[in-house]
Amino acid sequence: MFSGAQVSLYPMSDDFVGIILGAIGSLDPWRDRLRIETDSLSTLMVGPPDVLFPAMRDLFCAAARSGVHTTMHATVSRGCPGEPDDPICTPVAGPSRDLSLAERVEACRAVVATAPVLEQEISVQFSLYPLGVGHHMDEIYGCIEFLKTSGTFLRSKNFCTALRGDAGPVFETLSQAFTGFGATAGHLAMDVTVSANSPSDR
Amino acid sequence: MFSGAQVSLYPMSDDFVGIILGAIGSLDPWRDRLRIETDSLSTLMVGPPDVLFPAMRDLFCAAARSGVHTTMHATVSRGCPGEPDDPICTPVAGPSRDLSLAERVEACRAVVATAPVLEQEISVQFSLYPLGVGHHMDEIYGCIEFLKTSGTFLRSKNFCTALRGDAGPVFETLSQAFTGFGATAGHLAMDVTVSANSPSDR
Repeated sequence: MFSGAQVSLYPMSDDFVGIILGAIGSLDPWRDRLRIETDSLSTLMVGPPDVLFPAMRDLFCAAARSGVHTTMHATVSRGCPGEPDDPICTPVAGPSRDLSLAERVEACRAVVATAPVLEQEISVQFSLYPLGVGHHMDEIYGCIEFLKTSGTFLRSKNFCTALRGDAGPVFETLSQAFTGFGATAGHLAMDVTVSANSPSDR
Repeated sequence: MFSGAQVSLYPMSDDFVGIILGAIGSLDPWRDRLRIETDSLSTLMVGPPDVLFPAMRDLFCAAARSGVHTTMHATVSRGCPGEPDDPICTPVAGPSRDLSLAERVEACRAVVATAPVLEQEISVQFSLYPLGVGHHMDEIYGCIEFLKTSGTFLRSKNFCTALRGDAGPVFETLSQAFTGFGATAGHLAMDVTVSANSPSDR
């Protein structure tokens, strides 16, 4: 399995460089479980989804705490057939995939309910793309049922789904949607945008 | 067919609201061929790909001309089976899909070569997701051959492809990649990030 994300942070401020550099320290607790490379467009993080999502959460929250309107975009991928297996990508946690679909919906919801509350309100929109064969529509409908009852669901939009709430449960919802459904070893991609401190929400 | 994009503009400036509002006027020449709805996370543009891409190009260039480091993200989709057919989405131009794959690669490249030069240097990274059945791998390899010889190709990255050059040919490359390959009526999604005036590039 190979999994990772191309992540970009966008603080809408003249001091965007300072805010980004200030936030990067929040990745330190995750660095031994991720491989990180930065270029002018994004930062590549290679590692298992159950490390990627909390690491992206901490990075985003560190920037959002500046109070500046900040967004983050990530292209997340697992199981891409063109990428080599990498031991750093072995998942370490999460509900067992041996459960029935209904039990998995319940188990993912339970994980979200115990997510830490970080006192940082965020909005998210994301699209989940199951690629190639092996992703039964039952799995997708199970994921949708999970999202709608996750406690973080805001609404369906054209081409994507919007979530809203505290950063802890919202990022856990993304993580469970990405790991809990679809073929276990199948190719799955996610296009996710996170926003905080938007003047449109005031 | 239903096609459209969720588009977000991110000027990294204290005056981000002013720059965004100032750029929106650049959509005026396209408004009769698009349906546009805005919320706090993104602007939905519904219309055919051959209008969507130049409209996004003009919106981005208008913001980038502020000189501020600006990025734009779009989730672009065509042929999503859950969306209703919409007459506004009927494509109006582009090389015929009756050509052979090799002829289409050549035709798409010729369209890019005649794109207007807008004197705005941009960097792009994007992922193209063919969903469901009907997208033969031959089509994907044809698209890759087109990209590598488009004149705008920068490099392959994990999970995405990077382009670089003038906004005219670069957006035309995205448009041709999105419309020229894959099943004509199939479901195709694109996750694209555009950047200009990055201090990392200076």
